[in-house]
Amino acid sequence: MVSQTPEQIGTNQSFGGQQLRYKHQSAVLNCEMTFSIYLPPQAQKGPVPVLYWLSGLTCNDENFVHKAGAQQHAAEQGIAIVCPDTSPRGDGVADDPDGAYDMGLGAGFYVNATQQPWAEHYQMYSYILDELPQLINKEFPVDGERISISGHSMGGHGALTIALKNPQRFKSVSAFAPICSPLNCPWGDKVLSNYLGDDRHTWKYYDAVELIKQAQQHLPVLVDQGTADNFLTEQLKTELLVSAGQVADFPIQIRMQPDYDHSYFFIATFIAEHIKFHARALL
Amino acid sequence: MVSQTPEQIGTNQSFGGQQLRYKHQSAVLNCEMTFSIYLPPQAQKGPVPVLYWLSGLTCNDENFVHKAGAQQHAAEQGIAIVCPDTSPRGDGVADDPDGAYDMGLGAGFYVNATQQPWAEHYQMYSYILDELPQLINKEFPVDGERISISGHSMGGHGALTIALKNPQRFKSVSAFAPICSPLNCPWGDKVLSNYLGDDRHTWKYYDAVELIKQAQQHLPVLVDQGTADNFLTEQLKTELLVSAGQVADFPIQIRMQPDYDHSYFFIATFIAEHIKFHARALL
Repeated sequence: MVSQTPEQIGTNQSFGGQQLRYKHQSAVLNCEMTFSIYLPPQAQKGPVPVLYWLSGLTCNDENFVHKAGAQQHAAEQGIAIVCPDTSPRGDGVADDPDGAYDMGLGAGFYVNATQQPWAEHYQMYSYILDELPQLINKEFPVDGERISISGHSMGGHGALTIALKNPQRFKSVSAFAPICSPLNCPWGDKVLSNYLGDDRHTWKYYDAVELIKQAQQHLPVLVDQGTADNFLTEQLKTELLVSAGQVADFPIQIRMQPDYDHSYFFIATFIAEHIKFHARALL
Repeated sequence: MVSQTPEQIGTNQSFGGQQLRYKHQSAVLNCEMTFSIYLPPQAQKGPVPVLYWLSGLTCNDENFVHKAGAQQHAAEQGIAIVCPDTSPRGDGVADDPDGAYDMGLGAGFYVNATQQPWAEHYQMYSYILDELPQLINKEFPVDGERISISGHSMGGHGALTIALKNPQRFKSVSAFAPICSPLNCPWGDKVLSNYLGDDRHTWKYYDAVELIKQAQQHLPVLVDQGTADNFLTEQLKTELLVSAGQVADFPIQIRMQPDYDHSYFFIATFIAEHIKFHARALL
Protein backbone atom coordinates (compact mmCIF):
# COMPACT_ATOMS: atom_id res chain seq x y z
CA MET A 1 0.00 0.00 0.00
CA VAL A 2 1.45 3.37 -1.00
CA SER A 3 0.28 6.32 1.07
CA GLN A 4 0.31 9.77 -0.42
CA THR A 5 1.93 12.49 1.61
CA PRO A 6 -0.93 14.20 3.46
CA GLU A 7 -1.72 17.81 2.61
CA GLN A 8 -2.03 20.24 5.50
CA ILE A 9 -5.34 22.12 5.46
CA GLY A 10 -5.35 23.68 8.93
CA THR A 11 -3.01 24.77 11.70
CA ASN A 12 -3.69 26.48 15.04
CA GLN A 13 -1.37 27.06 17.96
CA SER A 14 -2.87 25.40 21.04
CA PHE A 15 -1.45 25.02 24.56
CA GLY A 16 2.09 25.50 23.28
CA GLY A 17 1.64 22.79 20.64
CA GLN A 18 -0.09 22.63 17.30
CA GLN A 19 -3.57 21.53 16.32
CA LEU A 20 -3.21 20.41 12.70
CA ARG A 21 -5.61 19.15 10.03
CA TYR A 22 -4.74 17.15 6.89
CA LYS A 23 -6.36 15.47 3.92
CA HIS A 24 -4.96 12.45 2.10
CA GLN A 25 -5.95 9.79 -0.38
CA SER A 26 -6.80 6.55 1.42
CA ALA A 27 -6.04 3.38 -0.53
CA VAL A 28 -7.99 1.20 1.88
CA LEU A 29 -11.12 3.38 1.83
CA ASN A 30 -10.74 4.29 -1.83
CA CYS A 31 -11.50 7.98 -1.23
CA GLU A 32 -10.04 11.20 0.11
CA MET A 33 -10.03 11.41 3.89
CA THR A 34 -9.45 14.16 6.44
CA PHE A 35 -7.87 13.77 9.85
CA SER A 36 -6.77 16.05 12.70
CA ILE A 37 -3.69 15.64 14.85
CA TYR A 38 -2.60 17.51 17.97
CA LEU A 39 1.15 17.67 18.49
CA PRO A 40 2.08 18.66 22.05
CA PRO A 41 5.05 20.96 22.70
CA GLN A 42 7.18 17.92 23.60
CA ALA A 43 6.99 16.75 19.95
CA GLN A 44 9.44 19.52 19.03
CA LYS A 45 12.16 17.61 20.93
CA GLY A 46 11.49 14.06 19.74
CA PRO A 47 8.89 11.36 19.17
CA VAL A 48 5.89 11.33 21.50
CA PRO A 49 3.34 8.55 22.11
CA VAL A 50 -0.02 8.73 20.35
CA LEU A 51 -3.63 8.43 21.44
CA TYR A 52 -6.15 7.66 18.69
CA TRP A 53 -9.61 9.10 19.27
CA LEU A 54 -12.61 7.59 17.46
CA SER A 55 -15.70 9.78 17.34
CA GLY A 56 -19.35 8.83 17.37
CA LEU A 57 -22.28 8.91 14.94
CA THR A 58 -22.64 12.11 12.85
CA CYS A 59 -19.17 13.37 13.84
CA ASN A 60 -16.14 14.06 11.68
CA ASP A 61 -12.51 14.61 12.70
CA GLU A 62 -13.24 18.02 14.23
CA ASN A 63 -15.87 17.54 16.96
CA PHE A 64 -13.43 16.21 19.52
CA VAL A 65 -10.84 18.81 18.52
CA HIS A 66 -13.21 21.71 19.20
CA LYS A 67 -15.27 20.42 22.11
CA ALA A 68 -13.35 18.01 24.33
CA GLY A 69 -10.69 20.35 25.70
CA ALA A 70 -8.17 17.53 25.38
CA GLN A 71 -5.25 19.62 24.15
CA GLN A 72 -4.61 21.01 27.63
CA HIS A 73 -4.09 17.54 29.06
CA ALA A 74 -2.25 16.17 26.01
CA ALA A 75 0.19 19.08 26.33
CA GLU A 76 0.67 18.38 30.03
CA GLN A 77 1.39 14.70 29.41
CA GLY A 78 3.27 15.02 26.12
CA ILE A 79 0.92 12.85 24.08
CA ALA A 80 -0.19 13.40 20.47
CA ILE A 81 -3.87 12.86 19.64
CA VAL A 82 -5.01 11.64 16.22
CA CYS A 83 -8.67 12.14 15.27
CA PRO A 84 -9.81 10.29 12.13
CA ASP A 85 -13.11 10.84 10.38
CA THR A 86 -15.96 8.41 11.18
CA SER A 87 -16.59 6.99 7.70
CA PRO A 88 -15.39 7.14 4.11
CA ARG A 89 -16.51 10.33 2.36
CA GLY A 90 -17.22 11.65 -1.10
CA ASP A 91 -19.72 11.63 -3.93
CA GLY A 92 -19.28 7.97 -4.86
CA VAL A 93 -19.59 6.63 -1.32
CA ALA A 94 -22.78 4.75 -0.42
CA ASP A 95 -25.06 6.28 2.19
CA ASP A 96 -28.20 5.30 4.07
CA PRO A 97 -31.01 5.22 1.46
CA ASP A 98 -33.24 7.25 3.78
CA GLY A 99 -30.46 9.63 4.82
CA ALA A 100 -30.58 8.37 8.41
CA TYR A 101 -27.73 9.42 10.70
CA ASP A 102 -27.00 5.93 12.00
CA MET A 103 -25.75 4.22 8.82
CA GLY A 104 -23.51 5.26 5.93
CA LEU A 105 -21.76 8.64 5.96
CA GLY A 106 -20.63 9.54 9.49
CA ALA A 107 -21.48 6.01 10.64
CA GLY A 108 -18.73 3.63 9.49
CA PHE A 109 -18.89 1.69 12.77
CA TYR A 110 -15.17 0.85 12.46
CA VAL A 111 -15.79 -2.44 10.64
CA ASN A 112 -14.69 -3.86 7.28
CA ALA A 113 -17.89 -4.20 5.27
CA THR A 114 -18.35 -7.36 3.20
CA GLN A 115 -21.73 -6.58 1.64
CA GLN A 116 -22.79 -4.36 -1.26
CA PRO A 117 -23.00 -1.44 -1.74
CA TRP A 118 -20.78 -0.89 1.32
CA ALA A 119 -17.70 -3.04 0.73
CA GLU A 120 -16.03 -0.77 -1.82
CA HIS A 121 -15.38 2.04 0.70
CA TYR A 122 -16.47 1.03 4.20
CA GLN A 123 -13.22 -0.52 5.47
CA MET A 124 -12.80 1.64 8.56
CA TYR A 125 -11.37 -1.20 10.70
CA SER A 126 -8.33 -1.57 8.45
CA TYR A 127 -8.01 2.18 7.99
CA ILE A 128 -7.84 2.83 11.75
CA LEU A 129 -5.72 -0.19 12.60
CA ASP A 130 -3.23 -0.14 9.73
CA GLU A 131 -3.30 2.51 7.03
CA LEU A 132 -3.69 5.62 9.16
CA PRO A 133 -1.11 4.64 11.82
CA GLN A 134 1.41 3.79 9.07
CA LEU A 135 0.93 7.26 7.62
CA ILE A 136 1.04 8.96 11.03
CA ASN A 137 4.18 7.07 12.06
CA LYS A 138 5.90 8.03 8.80
CA GLU A 139 4.91 11.70 8.62
CA PHE A 140 4.85 12.95 12.23
CA PRO A 141 7.22 12.94 15.24
CA VAL A 142 5.47 10.08 17.05
CA ASP A 143 6.59 6.77 18.54
CA GLY A 144 4.66 4.06 16.69
CA GLU A 145 5.43 1.56 19.46
CA ARG A 146 3.50 3.58 22.04
CA ILE A 147 -0.12 3.79 20.91
CA SER A 148 -3.38 3.85 22.85
CA ILE A 149 -6.96 4.31 21.70
CA SER A 150 -10.17 5.86 22.98
CA GLY A 151 -13.54 6.93 21.64
CA HIS A 152 -17.13 7.92 22.22
CA SER A 153 -20.35 5.98 21.58
CA MET A 154 -19.86 4.33 18.14
CA GLY A 155 -16.20 5.34 18.57
CA GLY A 156 -16.10 3.74 22.02
CA HIS A 157 -17.27 0.53 20.35
CA GLY A 158 -14.55 1.05 17.73
CA ALA A 159 -11.81 1.66 20.29
CA LEU A 160 -12.77 -1.34 22.45
CA THR A 161 -13.16 -3.81 19.57
CA ILE A 162 -10.01 -2.73 17.74
CA ALA A 163 -7.88 -2.84 20.90
CA LEU A 164 -9.36 -6.09 22.21
CA LYS A 165 -8.64 -7.83 18.88
CA ASN A 166 -5.12 -6.39 18.73
CA PRO A 167 -3.86 -6.08 22.31
CA GLN A 168 -0.22 -6.25 21.16
CA ARG A 169 -0.72 -3.01 19.21
CA PHE A 170 -2.17 -0.87 22.00
CA LYS A 171 -0.91 -0.03 25.49
CA SER A 172 -4.38 0.83 26.80
CA VAL A 173 -7.95 1.49 25.70
CA SER A 174 -10.73 3.66 27.07
CA ALA A 175 -14.24 4.61 26.06
CA PHE A 176 -16.96 7.13 26.83
CA ALA A 177 -20.50 5.76 26.63
CA PRO A 178 -19.54 2.97 24.20
CA ILE A 179 -21.97 0.85 22.22
CA CYS A 180 -20.98 -2.27 24.13
CA SER A 181 -22.71 -4.95 22.08
CA PRO A 182 -23.90 -4.34 18.50
CA LEU A 183 -25.27 -7.91 18.64
CA ASN A 184 -27.77 -6.69 21.21
CA CYS A 185 -29.01 -3.25 20.15
CA PRO A 186 -31.04 -1.64 17.34
CA TRP A 187 -28.07 0.31 15.94
CA GLY A 188 -26.08 -2.91 15.65
CA ASP A 189 -28.99 -4.82 14.12
CA LYS A 190 -29.45 -2.24 11.40
CA VAL A 191 -25.87 -1.43 10.57
CA LEU A 192 -24.14 -4.79 10.89
CA SER A 193 -26.82 -6.62 8.93
CA ASN A 194 -26.16 -4.15 6.13
CA TYR A 195 -22.35 -3.98 6.36
CA LEU A 196 -21.67 -7.62 7.29
CA GLY A 197 -24.79 -9.53 6.22
CA ASP A 198 -27.26 -11.63 8.14
CA ASP A 199 -24.83 -14.23 9.51
CA ARG A 200 -24.56 -12.93 13.04
CA HIS A 201 -21.51 -15.08 13.77
CA THR A 202 -19.46 -12.59 11.75
CA TRP A 203 -20.70 -9.79 13.99
CA LYS A 204 -18.93 -11.28 17.01
CA TYR A 205 -15.60 -10.00 15.72
CA TYR A 206 -16.96 -6.47 16.18
CA ASP A 207 -18.68 -6.88 19.52
CA ALA A 208 -16.79 -5.74 22.64
CA VAL A 209 -18.81 -7.99 24.95
CA GLU A 210 -17.97 -11.06 22.88
CA LEU A 211 -14.31 -10.05 22.54
CA ILE A 212 -13.98 -9.52 26.32
CA LYS A 213 -15.18 -13.08 26.85
CA GLN A 214 -12.53 -14.45 24.46
CA ALA A 215 -9.64 -12.17 25.42
CA GLN A 216 -6.34 -13.92 26.12
CA GLN A 217 -4.48 -10.72 26.98
CA HIS A 218 -5.86 -8.19 29.48
CA LEU A 219 -4.78 -4.70 28.50
CA PRO A 220 -5.83 -1.77 30.74
CA VAL A 221 -9.47 -0.77 30.03
CA LEU A 222 -11.32 2.29 31.36
CA VAL A 223 -14.98 3.03 30.55
CA ASP A 224 -17.05 6.03 31.70
CA GLN A 225 -20.83 6.00 31.30
CA GLY A 226 -23.28 8.74 32.31
CA THR A 227 -26.40 7.65 34.16
CA ALA A 228 -28.52 10.35 32.42
CA ASP A 229 -27.51 9.15 28.94
CA ASN A 230 -30.64 8.79 26.78
CA PHE A 231 -29.07 5.92 24.82
CA LEU A 232 -28.00 3.87 27.83
CA THR A 233 -30.85 1.40 28.13
CA GLU A 234 -31.68 0.68 24.51
CA GLN A 235 -28.41 1.09 22.62
CA LEU A 236 -25.35 1.11 24.86
CA LYS A 237 -26.00 -1.85 27.22
CA THR A 238 -23.19 -1.13 29.63
CA GLU A 239 -24.46 -3.88 31.93
CA LEU A 240 -23.48 -6.52 29.34
CA LEU A 241 -19.90 -5.26 29.43
CA VAL A 242 -19.87 -5.35 33.22
CA SER A 243 -21.08 -8.94 33.33
CA ALA A 244 -18.77 -10.06 30.51
CA GLY A 245 -15.78 -8.69 32.41
CA GLN A 246 -16.88 -10.54 35.54
CA VAL A 247 -17.48 -13.83 33.72
CA ALA A 248 -14.12 -13.61 31.91
CA ASP A 249 -12.27 -12.39 35.01
CA PHE A 250 -11.08 -9.44 32.93
CA PRO A 251 -10.57 -6.43 35.26
CA ILE A 252 -12.30 -3.63 33.34
CA GLN A 253 -12.70 -0.31 35.14
CA ILE A 254 -16.30 0.79 34.40
CA ARG A 255 -17.50 3.94 36.12
CA MET A 256 -21.14 5.06 36.16
CA GLN A 257 -21.10 8.87 36.35
CA PRO A 258 -24.24 10.30 38.02
CA ASP A 259 -26.28 12.83 36.03
CA TYR A 260 -24.00 12.93 32.97
CA ASP A 261 -25.54 12.59 29.51
CA HIS A 262 -24.23 11.51 26.09
CA SER A 263 -22.80 14.92 25.10
CA TYR A 264 -19.35 16.42 24.77
CA PHE A 265 -19.91 18.10 28.15
CA PHE A 266 -19.61 14.60 29.60
CA ILE A 267 -16.47 13.86 27.58
CA ALA A 268 -14.86 17.20 28.49
CA THR A 269 -15.47 16.56 32.19
CA PHE A 270 -13.58 13.26 32.24
CA ILE A 271 -11.09 13.52 29.35
CA ALA A 272 -8.31 14.62 31.74
CA GLU A 273 -8.68 11.38 33.68
CA HIS A 274 -8.68 9.31 30.50
CA ILE A 275 -5.53 10.98 29.21
CA LYS A 276 -3.82 10.39 32.57
CA PHE A 277 -4.98 6.76 32.43
CA HIS A 278 -3.38 6.34 29.00
CA ALA A 279 -0.27 8.27 30.09
CA ARG A 280 0.37 5.67 32.79
CA ALA A 281 0.52 2.99 30.06
CA LEU A 282 2.34 5.09 27.45
CA LEU A 283 4.99 7.06 29.35
CA MET B 1 -38.87 47.10 33.19
CA VAL B 2 -40.54 43.77 33.84
CA SER B 3 -38.53 40.72 32.89
CA GLN B 4 -40.28 37.51 32.03
CA THR B 5 -39.12 34.41 33.82
CA PRO B 6 -36.66 32.75 31.44
CA GLU B 7 -37.56 29.37 29.96
CA GLN B 8 -34.98 26.61 30.19
CA ILE B 9 -34.17 25.09 26.80
CA GLY B 10 -31.03 23.09 27.60
CA THR B 11 -29.23 21.43 30.50
CA ASN B 12 -26.04 19.38 30.61
CA GLN B 13 -24.04 18.19 33.59
CA SER B 14 -20.50 19.57 33.30
CA PHE B 15 -17.59 19.34 35.74
CA GLY B 16 -19.91 18.69 38.65
CA GLY B 17 -22.00 21.76 37.80
CA GLN B 18 -24.63 22.53 35.21
CA GLN B 19 -24.38 24.08 31.77
CA LEU B 20 -27.80 25.63 31.19
CA ARG B 21 -29.48 27.46 28.31
CA TYR B 22 -32.51 29.76 28.46
CA LYS B 23 -34.66 31.95 26.27
CA HIS B 24 -36.52 35.03 27.47
CA GLN B 25 -38.32 38.08 26.14
CA SER B 26 -36.03 41.13 26.29
CA ALA B 27 -37.81 44.43 26.85
CA VAL B 28 -34.70 46.44 26.01
CA LEU B 29 -34.00 44.62 22.75
CA ASN B 30 -37.67 44.16 21.93
CA CYS B 31 -37.22 40.53 20.87
CA GLU B 32 -36.73 37.03 22.24
CA MET B 33 -33.17 36.33 23.34
CA THR B 34 -31.20 33.22 24.26
CA PHE B 35 -28.40 32.99 26.83
CA SER B 36 -26.29 30.27 28.40
CA ILE B 37 -25.16 30.09 32.01
CA TYR B 38 -22.73 27.74 33.71
CA LEU B 39 -23.42 27.14 37.40
CA PRO B 40 -20.43 25.59 39.19
CA PRO B 41 -20.96 22.95 41.89
CA GLN B 42 -20.47 25.63 44.58
CA ALA B 43 -23.76 27.27 43.47
CA GLN B 44 -25.64 24.42 45.16
CA LYS B 45 -24.48 25.79 48.52
CA GLY B 46 -25.06 29.52 48.01
CA PRO B 47 -24.56 32.52 45.75
CA VAL B 48 -21.42 32.53 43.60
CA PRO B 49 -19.78 35.42 41.74
CA VAL B 50 -20.43 35.82 38.02
CA LEU B 51 -18.25 36.31 34.98
CA TYR B 52 -20.01 37.69 31.89
CA TRP B 53 -18.52 36.52 28.58
CA LEU B 54 -19.15 38.54 25.42
CA SER B 55 -18.51 36.71 22.17
CA GLY B 56 -17.27 38.01 18.84
CA LEU B 57 -18.68 38.53 15.35
CA THR B 58 -20.85 35.68 13.95
CA CYS B 59 -21.11 33.97 17.37
CA ASN B 60 -24.15 33.29 19.50
CA ASP B 61 -24.35 32.26 23.16
CA GLU B 62 -23.02 28.75 22.48
CA ASN B 63 -19.59 29.13 20.86
CA PHE B 64 -17.80 29.85 24.11
CA VAL B 65 -19.79 27.16 25.91
CA HIS B 66 -18.69 24.46 23.48
CA LYS B 67 -15.18 25.53 22.55
CA ALA B 68 -13.43 27.44 25.36
CA GLY B 69 -13.19 24.69 27.97
CA ALA B 70 -14.00 27.27 30.63
CA GLN B 71 -16.28 25.08 32.75
CA GLN B 72 -13.31 23.18 34.20
CA HIS B 73 -11.80 26.37 35.57
CA ALA B 74 -15.11 27.95 36.59
CA ALA B 75 -15.83 24.79 38.61
CA GLU B 76 -12.41 24.95 40.26
CA GLN B 77 -12.87 28.60 41.25
CA GLY B 78 -16.59 28.52 42.00
CA ILE B 79 -17.60 31.17 39.47
CA ALA B 80 -20.72 31.22 37.28
CA ILE B 81 -20.31 32.22 33.62
CA VAL B 82 -23.07 33.97 31.69
CA CYS B 83 -22.87 33.96 27.88
CA PRO B 84 -25.33 36.32 26.13
CA ASP B 85 -26.02 36.34 22.41
CA THR B 86 -24.15 38.91 20.28
CA SER B 87 -27.11 40.83 18.86
CA PRO B 88 -30.88 41.03 18.90
CA ARG B 89 -32.51 38.22 16.90
CA GLY B 90 -35.69 37.45 15.04
CA ASP B 91 -37.59 38.08 11.84
CA GLY B 92 -38.25 41.76 12.46
CA VAL B 93 -34.67 42.64 13.39
CA ALA B 94 -32.67 44.70 10.87
CA ASP B 95 -29.63 43.07 9.29
CA ASP B 96 -26.78 44.11 7.00
CA PRO B 97 -28.40 44.80 3.59
CA ASP B 98 -25.69 42.70 1.90
CA GLY B 99 -25.80 39.96 4.52
CA ALA B 100 -22.24 40.74 5.63
CA TYR B 101 -21.05 39.10 8.85
CA ASP B 102 -19.70 42.31 10.39
CA MET B 103 -22.94 44.29 10.87
CA GLY B 104 -26.47 43.44 11.99
CA LEU B 105 -27.31 39.93 13.22
CA GLY B 106 -24.41 38.47 15.21
CA ALA B 107 -22.72 41.87 15.22
CA GLY B 108 -24.42 44.08 17.80
CA PHE B 109 -21.09 45.60 18.87
CA TYR B 110 -22.45 46.11 22.40
CA VAL B 111 -23.66 49.67 21.71
CA ASN B 112 -27.05 51.39 21.95
CA ALA B 113 -27.92 52.29 18.36
CA THR B 114 -29.42 55.72 17.76
CA GLN B 115 -29.95 55.49 13.98
CA GLN B 116 -32.58 53.80 11.84
CA PRO B 117 -33.24 50.99 11.10
CA TRP B 118 -31.10 49.85 14.04
CA ALA B 119 -32.39 51.76 17.06
CA GLU B 120 -35.53 49.67 17.57
CA HIS B 121 -33.64 46.50 18.58
CA TYR B 122 -29.89 47.15 18.70
CA GLN B 123 -29.53 48.18 22.37
CA MET B 124 -26.95 45.62 23.39
CA TYR B 125 -25.09 47.98 25.74
CA SER B 126 -28.12 48.36 28.01
CA TYR B 127 -29.02 44.68 27.67
CA ILE B 128 -25.59 43.54 28.86
CA LEU B 129 -25.13 46.20 31.52
CA ASP B 130 -28.63 46.28 33.02
CA GLU B 131 -31.43 44.03 31.80
CA LEU B 132 -29.58 40.71 31.65
CA PRO B 133 -27.77 41.08 35.02
CA GLN B 134 -31.06 42.04 36.70
CA LEU B 135 -32.62 38.86 35.34
CA ILE B 136 -29.61 36.72 36.25
CA ASN B 137 -29.41 38.14 39.77
CA LYS B 138 -33.11 37.46 40.30
CA GLU B 139 -33.34 33.96 38.84
CA PHE B 140 -30.03 32.26 39.67
CA PRO B 141 -27.90 31.64 42.81
CA VAL B 142 -25.39 34.38 42.06
CA ASP B 143 -24.00 37.34 44.00
CA GLY B 144 -24.87 40.45 41.98
CA GLU B 145 -22.26 42.47 43.86
CA ARG B 146 -19.41 40.35 42.54
CA ILE B 147 -19.40 40.63 38.75
CA SER B 148 -16.54 40.62 36.24
CA ILE B 149 -16.58 40.68 32.45
CA SER B 150 -14.52 39.29 29.59
CA GLY B 151 -14.85 38.74 25.86
CA HIS B 152 -13.27 38.03 22.50
CA SER B 153 -12.71 40.34 19.54
CA MET B 154 -15.95 42.38 19.20
CA GLY B 155 -16.77 40.96 22.65
CA GLY B 156 -13.38 42.09 23.97
CA HIS B 157 -14.30 45.57 22.80
CA GLY B 158 -17.66 45.16 24.53
CA ALA B 159 -16.14 43.95 27.80
CA LEU B 160 -13.53 46.71 27.93
CA THR B 161 -15.89 49.56 27.04
CA ILE B 162 -18.71 48.44 29.34
CA ALA B 163 -16.36 47.92 32.30
CA LEU B 164 -14.35 51.11 31.72
CA LYS B 165 -17.56 53.16 31.64
CA ASN B 166 -18.93 51.44 34.74
CA PRO B 167 -15.96 50.54 36.96
CA GLN B 168 -18.16 50.53 40.05
CA ARG B 169 -20.16 47.62 38.59
CA PHE B 170 -17.27 45.26 37.75
CA LYS B 171 -14.46 43.87 39.86
CA SER B 172 -12.20 43.17 36.86
CA VAL B 173 -12.20 43.02 33.07
CA SER B 174 -10.25 40.96 30.56
CA ALA B 175 -10.22 40.51 26.82
CA PHE B 176 -8.90 38.19 24.15
CA ALA B 177 -7.86 39.91 20.91
CA PRO B 178 -10.19 42.88 21.47
CA ILE B 179 -11.11 45.48 18.86
CA CYS B 180 -9.31 48.20 20.79
CA SER B 181 -10.46 51.28 18.89
CA PRO B 182 -13.53 51.28 16.63
CA LEU B 183 -12.62 54.89 15.84
CA ASN B 184 -9.54 53.61 14.07
CA CYS B 185 -10.48 50.47 12.14
CA PRO B 186 -12.67 49.47 9.17
CA TRP B 187 -15.09 47.44 11.31
CA GLY B 188 -15.67 50.46 13.53
CA ASP B 189 -16.06 52.83 10.58
CA LYS B 190 -18.72 50.69 8.99
CA VAL B 191 -20.71 49.64 12.03
CA LEU B 192 -20.61 52.74 14.22
CA SER B 193 -21.47 55.07 11.34
CA ASN B 194 -24.56 52.94 10.81
CA TYR B 195 -25.51 52.36 14.45
CA LEU B 196 -24.51 55.79 15.86
CA GLY B 197 -24.36 58.09 12.85
CA ASP B 198 -21.58 60.15 11.35
CA ASP B 199 -20.80 62.31 14.41
CA ARG B 200 -17.66 60.53 15.52
CA HIS B 201 -17.71 62.24 18.91
CA THR B 202 -20.49 59.87 19.92
CA TRP B 203 -18.26 56.93 19.05
CA LYS B 204 -15.81 57.83 21.81
CA TYR B 205 -18.19 56.40 24.41
CA TYR B 206 -17.67 53.01 22.79
CA ASP B 207 -13.93 53.12 22.21
CA ALA B 208 -11.67 51.40 24.77
CA VAL B 209 -8.65 53.51 23.82
CA GLU B 210 -10.58 56.75 24.43
CA LEU B 211 -12.10 55.42 27.65
CA ILE B 212 -8.71 54.37 29.01
CA LYS B 213 -7.48 57.92 28.51
CA GLN B 214 -10.43 59.34 30.50
CA ALA B 215 -10.61 56.68 33.21
CA GLN B 216 -10.84 57.99 36.78
CA GLN B 217 -10.90 54.53 38.36
CA HIS B 218 -8.35 51.84 37.46
CA LEU B 219 -9.94 48.45 37.74
CA PRO B 220 -7.78 45.35 37.01
CA VAL B 221 -7.44 44.81 33.22
CA LEU B 222 -5.88 41.81 31.45
CA VAL B 223 -5.59 41.54 27.66
CA ASP B 224 -4.15 38.64 25.64
CA GLN B 225 -3.37 39.08 21.95
CA GLY B 226 -1.91 36.48 19.58
CA THR B 227 0.90 37.62 17.29
CA ALA B 228 -0.33 35.40 14.43
CA ASP B 229 -3.83 36.94 14.50
CA ASN B 230 -4.86 37.89 10.95
CA PHE B 231 -6.92 40.82 12.24
CA LEU B 232 -4.23 42.34 14.43
CA THR B 233 -2.82 45.01 12.13
CA GLU B 234 -5.92 46.27 10.38
CA GLN B 235 -8.76 45.81 12.86
CA LEU B 236 -7.59 45.19 16.43
CA LYS B 237 -4.87 47.86 16.89
CA THR B 238 -3.53 46.57 20.18
CA GLU B 239 -0.70 49.09 20.01
CA LEU B 240 -3.19 51.93 20.52
CA LEU B 241 -4.34 50.32 23.78
CA VAL B 242 -0.75 49.91 24.93
CA SER B 243 0.08 53.55 24.30
CA ALA B 244 -3.21 54.81 25.80
CA GLY B 245 -2.45 52.92 29.00
CA GLN B 246 1.02 54.43 29.14
CA VAL B 247 -0.21 57.97 28.46
CA ALA B 248 -2.98 57.65 31.06
CA ASP B 249 -0.72 55.88 33.58
CA PHE B 250 -3.35 53.12 33.71
CA PRO B 251 -1.61 49.80 34.50
CA ILE B 252 -3.15 47.46 31.90
CA GLN B 253 -1.63 44.00 31.62
CA ILE B 254 -1.33 43.37 27.85
CA ARG B 255 0.37 40.14 26.81
CA MET B 256 1.42 39.40 23.22
CA GLN B 257 1.22 35.61 22.80
CA PRO B 258 3.63 34.28 20.15
CA ASP B 259 2.14 32.24 17.28
CA TYR B 260 -1.47 32.33 18.52
CA ASP B 261 -4.23 33.27 16.07
CA HIS B 262 -7.78 34.66 16.46
CA SER B 263 -9.47 31.30 17.06
CA TYR B 264 -11.00 29.53 20.03
CA PHE B 265 -7.80 27.46 20.28
CA PHE B 266 -6.18 30.70 21.47
CA ILE B 267 -8.99 31.39 23.93
CA ALA B 268 -8.95 27.82 25.28
CA THR B 269 -5.21 28.03 25.87
CA PHE B 270 -5.42 31.09 28.12
CA ILE B 271 -8.95 30.97 29.58
CA ALA B 272 -7.67 29.31 32.77
CA GLU B 273 -5.40 32.28 33.42
CA HIS B 274 -8.21 34.74 32.77
CA ILE B 275 -10.56 32.96 35.14
CA LYS B 276 -7.85 32.92 37.82
CA PHE B 277 -7.29 36.64 37.18
CA HIS B 278 -10.98 37.35 37.73
CA ALA B 279 -11.10 34.99 40.74
CA ARG B 280 -8.49 37.14 42.49
CA ALA B 281 -10.86 40.12 42.17
CA LEU B 282 -14.09 38.22 42.85
CA LEU B 283 -13.31 35.79 45.66
